[in-house]
Amino acid sequence: MSLLVTGSIGIDTVETPFGKRDDVIGGSAVYFSYAASFFTPVRLVGAVGEDAPKELFDVFGEQEVDTSGLEVRKGSKTFRWHGSYVQDLNEAVSIQTDLNILAEAAPKIPEKFIDSKFVFLANPHPALQQQMAANLKKPRLIVADTMNLWINTARPELLKTLKMIHGLVLNDGEARLLTEKKNLIEAARDVLKLGPKFVVIKKGEHGCLMCSGNDVFVLPAYPADRVVDPTGAGDSFAGGFMGYIAEKDEFDAETLKTAMAYGIVAASFNVEGFGVERVQEITRDDIEKRMSEYRKMLSF
Amino acid sequence: MSLLVTGSIGIDTVETPFGKRDDVIGGSAVYFSYAASFFTPVRLVGAVGEDAPKELFDVFGEQEVDTSGLEVRKGSKTFRWHGSYVQDLNEAVSIQTDLNILAEAAPKIPEKFIDSKFVFLANPHPALQQQMAANLKKPRLIVADTMNLWINTARPELLKTLKMIHGLVLNDGEARLLTEKKNLIEAARDVLKLGPKFVVIKKGEHGCLMCSGNDVFVLPAYPADRVVDPTGAGDSFAGGFMGYIAEKDEFDAETLKTAMAYGIVAASFNVEGFGVERVQEITRDDIEKRMSEYRKMLSF
Repeated sequence: MSLLVTGSIGIDTVETPFGKRDDVIGGSAVYFSYAASFFTPVRLVGAVGEDAPKELFDVFGEQEVDTSGLEVRKGSKTFRWHGSYVQDLNEAVSIQTDLNILAEAAPKIPEKFIDSKFVFLANPHPALQQQMAANLKKPRLIVADTMNLWINTARPELLKTLKMIHGLVLNDGEARLLTEKKNLIEAARDVLKLGPKFVVIKKGEHGCLMCSGNDVFVLPAYPADRVVDPTGAGDSFAGGFMGYIAEKDEFDAETLKTAMAYGIVAASFNVEGFGVERVQEITRDDIEKRMSEYRKMLSF
Repeated sequence: MSLLVTGSIGIDTVETPFGKRDDVIGGSAVYFSYAASFFTPVRLVGAVGEDAPKELFDVFGEQEVDTSGLEVRKGSKTFRWHGSYVQDLNEAVSIQTDLNILAEAAPKIPEKFIDSKFVFLANPHPALQQQMAANLKKPRLIVADTMNLWINTARPELLKTLKMIHGLVLNDGEARLLTEKKNLIEAARDVLKLGPKFVVIKKGEHGCLMCSGNDVFVLPAYPADRVVDPTGAGDSFAGGFMGYIAEKDEFDAETLKTAMAYGIVAASFNVEGFGVERVQEITRDDIEKRMSEYRKMLSF
């Protein structure tokens, strides 16, 4: 089924214990789209500036990512981020962030995309998330992510967004900031009171948990002994998660659980290389092979 | 099969966000024994001072814990610990530690225990762990724990212990301190180079991982929304783990994996009350019920 994503598209400079890369294509929508495209065709909506490198348009190769919702805006500059994981592979230190085009008007959803049934609103401002959601014709499932910046500076708008969406995917720090609860299961339950039917909390190297109604699921991360660059791991997780849901055209509890596992597997490939380097090398078969290993690991 | 444990027996004062308890029976050997006794008869070897409260001898109730290896030493004082989890439920702040009898000679293994086939050396000084191990007649499986204190102050002795044992169970901080590796899978692999055939790294609220040969397993913790007192969670984990292994009389990779899951379930009950309060209320049936839920949660 059709899966639409909107979020940042950026030019990143990343430092990790494995080296430094300048000007790699990144951003939540890119990582998400790549991971999701192993499961279902993806419709990407985003905006970049005149400075966008031409590699951006080739980044998805043969993957089914429809980039016709990618606006190249004259006079604007692409979002840029420079971060370092040299001290701690689990937490980036932001050295420089230039919001640039992310602080401007939202990109438009192309007419041919408004019938999208599955929708992921990565990390735009919550007011833009609402606009996007309102512009769609009968979406079946809207899932959003958010970030500390919006929790801190746009909480009332974010709370409105939470009433419009079906699912929220966010990391542990964000969940704690949003709910002021330290215990993540309590935090997850508090999120459900704010609107969403389900919430997935990403815990980085510790995996993730989901609350849906009274059900709580937890899954460990796939054991990785070589994390080269964690940038985009959470977005790849969301891509695998939503990609599988859209492929199945279903979102009952069992599907959500399996989707979480696919998200974990997608993220596990993502961190094995800088940017999308590693996911560019793999196929759905590689994902299925690792999924079998992961399943086996968790059966006893 | 016979399971012998030796470790600390203590009188604890514990503060958590749920309250404070003075002078509760604690210590690694107590938590371990209680959890293991749901699976197999346990032989407890330890020493307390004259000040040991009489409740100590009733703490196991009807559970099959043979306390005839429990020495009450005249002129000595019982190990005491005062800790607080008020700031962080995942990490105790030690307010006061009085080693007392733990700094004296080791308790003797009763003659009738020396045929024990399964052995857990909780946290004595590594030199005492070696003595204990050497005194046993044909043990099939010796597993040890350790602590930061010994890693920092008795590393050469600890390295000798590691060459005598089959398995090591330790927490993430200890594994990192021992191996100077931040990535826990790298740390686990380094531990295997030091002697043990398998290593289990406990990650508190994030579950645990095991390396055995080239196999890596990870399991999440059972999702707990009400952690009243985490004291002894790691020892209860080890108790459930070793108890199941001794019950099965087997320690192939599949058994170790299932044993880890039982360890997680045992620990999940332990943290629901102060000291052994909560485990005193449960039966093997409760463990099996939660094990089924946990298994179901991890199947997809």
